[in-house]
Amino acid sequence: MSEAPRAETFVFMDLEATGLPNVDPEIAELALFAVHRSSLESLKRDEAGTPMLPRVLDKLTLCMCPERPFTTKASEITGLSSEGLAQCRKASFDATVVQALQAFLSRQAGPVCLVAHNGFDYDFPLLCTELQRLGAHLPPDTICLDTLPALRGLDRAHSHGTRAQGRKGYSLGSLFHRYFQAEPSAAHSAEGDVHTLLLIFLHRSAELLAWADEQARSWAHIEPMYAPPEA
Amino acid sequence: MSEAPRAETFVFMDLEATGLPNVDPEIAELALFAVHRSSLESLKRDEAGTPMLPRVLDKLTLCMCPERPFTTKASEITGLSSEGLAQCRKASFDATVVQALQAFLSRQAGPVCLVAHNGFDYDFPLLCTELQRLGAHLPPDTICLDTLPALRGLDRAHSHGTRAQGRKGYSLGSLFHRYFQAEPSAAHSAEGDVHTLLLIFLHRSAELLAWADEQARSWAHIEPMYAPPEA
Repeated sequence: MSEAPRAETFVFMDLEATGLPNVDPEIAELALFAVHRSSLESLKRDEAGTPMLPRVLDKLTLCMCPERPFTTKASEITGLSSEGLAQCRKASFDATVVQALQAFLSRQAGPVCLVAHNGFDYDFPLLCTELQRLGAHLPPDTICLDTLPALRGLDRAHSHGTRAQGRKGYSLGSLFHRYFQAEPSAAHSAEGDVHTLLLIFLHRSAELLAWADEQARSWAHIEPMYAPPEA
Repeated sequence: MSEAPRAETFVFMDLEATGLPNVDPEIAELALFAVHRSSLESLKRDEAGTPMLPRVLDKLTLCMCPERPFTTKASEITGLSSEGLAQCRKASFDATVVQALQAFLSRQAGPVCLVAHNGFDYDFPLLCTELQRLGAHLPPDTICLDTLPALRGLDRAHSHGTRAQGRKGYSLGSLFHRYFQAEPSAAHSAEGDVHTLLLIFLHRSAELLAWADEQARSWAHIEPMYAPPEA
């Protein structure tokens, strides 16, 4: 049994940031898609059998100008730069981001489960750092699910320990290609990646909901990626 | 000269609601895309010459469960229904919508210009009603632009009073088809229509920016669609 309550709403998320964990990155873009459990339990499919996005879907995408520079690689991959964000006069990850995030989450029936791909190693700890820096909190019953170990675990269970699964790629792009025989659109924009993640989730919705009910973790157990700098 | 200040950020918006003005409709879905002026002034185009969406783009889409029923037609067109929204446990247009909206707008460099197609006759008065019901306000320097009279006016100026322009359609779908020889995607979802509106705006960005600088109205002059019912 999970340590955590059963989620009522799943909030799919992705962050784009100034770099990998080794540079103590800052968030530059945040995207959230909120989907109620009932929409994940009763999927609609198009004529080709591909799952369709739920009609009732809340979205929040915010860009923010980090205080420290992007690594060259991060800027290349995401298409974001400090200059570009400053030109659009974006503020940093400040109290208004927290207000928008908290208001957005308060619109969703709880408990909310945040879902991110590689979330345990990247998105959740990084969001935790940024929130801690501002002394901000998520609703106390928030839980979280990382689709990377979840999909690996589901495949391992299916393959009964054969070695074939171990060689498969589990990046968002590899999974999308395997499930839909196509390239994901708008890779490495936060919203594009959340869209891809949601389609991947929908493709294995029943299994992933069952996994979440068993294995989702409490947000309270997420440790910050690094100690936030003093304000 | 415009009565209003020069906008720094343009927030494209669309509302889906329970019906037309004659039924005193309630908002059921709200979508906003915020784009800084600099992104509208220096467009990027793809190989086919079609304007590309700006990379730095904030988005907010919220669904809400109205208290009064949808008209059959509104439900058919939008794909939304009271049952569907209630099943996803969506709250009504309440204080949390205002908080999300205000936090979202406060992330944008001001003055902000709200842009909607047929905004003066539908979206702006309806939003005004819902905000008035909750005693909520937009930033006092907010201005607004309706692309329907703006595009009609621009075409009239170009055609020097010939009658050909008068017969053109100015619905979002007609404009999109005329400019891009394609059908817009996701028509009558709030986000789909904002996406279509933004592409239409980008197609005539320089003219519409000049029009906005001359003709945008102060939000303070928008009258509510109807007197909000007592809470």
